[in-house]
Amino acid sequence: MKLFNLPETAKFTADKPYRELLFDSPNLRLLTFNFEPGQELPVHSHNADSEVTLLILEGEGVFTGGPEEIPAKTGTLQIMPVSEPHGLRALTRVRLLVFIAPTL
Amino acid sequence: MKLFNLPETAKFTADKPYRELLFDSPNLRLLTFNFEPGQELPVHSHNADSEVTLLILEGEGVFTGGPEEIPAKTGTLQIMPVSEPHGLRALTRVRLLVFIAPTL
Repeated sequence: MKLFNLPETAKFTADKPYRELLFDSPNLRLLTFNFEPGQELPVHSHNADSEVTLLILEGEGVFTGGPEEIPAKTGTLQIMPVSEPHGLRALTRVRLLVFIAPTL
Repeated sequence: MKLFNLPETAKFTADKPYRELLFDSPNLRLLTFNFEPGQELPVHSHNADSEVTLLILEGEGVFTGGPEEIPAKTGTLQIMPVSEPHGLRALTRVRLLVFIAPTL
């Protein structure tokens, strides 16, 4: 069993998003990304049969990668095949929790 | 792609925890449970090679099922094999997000 207090992962770095791997098994990978305003998770996709879940723990931004940008704020959760383009751009400081299942 | 605004799932029922299935694929099942103070997710386990993630979106309670109860509050995340006993008892209103990967 692993236990995390997610507010403790609220670290930010000026040059690029702060990334932390929380958990990794064949079933599931769990990461956090923290963004300063303007920082981005660039639009990308993976050629795999997995689902990716993006959960905004705190802050405000837009989900990118689709035909239109999607407003995202605390409590917004997006879930999609990891083969579809996905990304995020932060408008404020953003704490993002990412689940990938199964692991790529 | 599916999009959820989790605060909209903050429904509660007096007789038992409010349960809502958000997403279900072979890779991943995603549920929310909302508890009034004193309500419980009874300790249980499943004989499967999956991981279960319990994330407290809001509120305060205790994770049950282990040798000792574990304090849990907004931002506490527990991850374990679904074959290990797990449960939750709410002390305040609690909103819980549950990931099971892969689906049982």
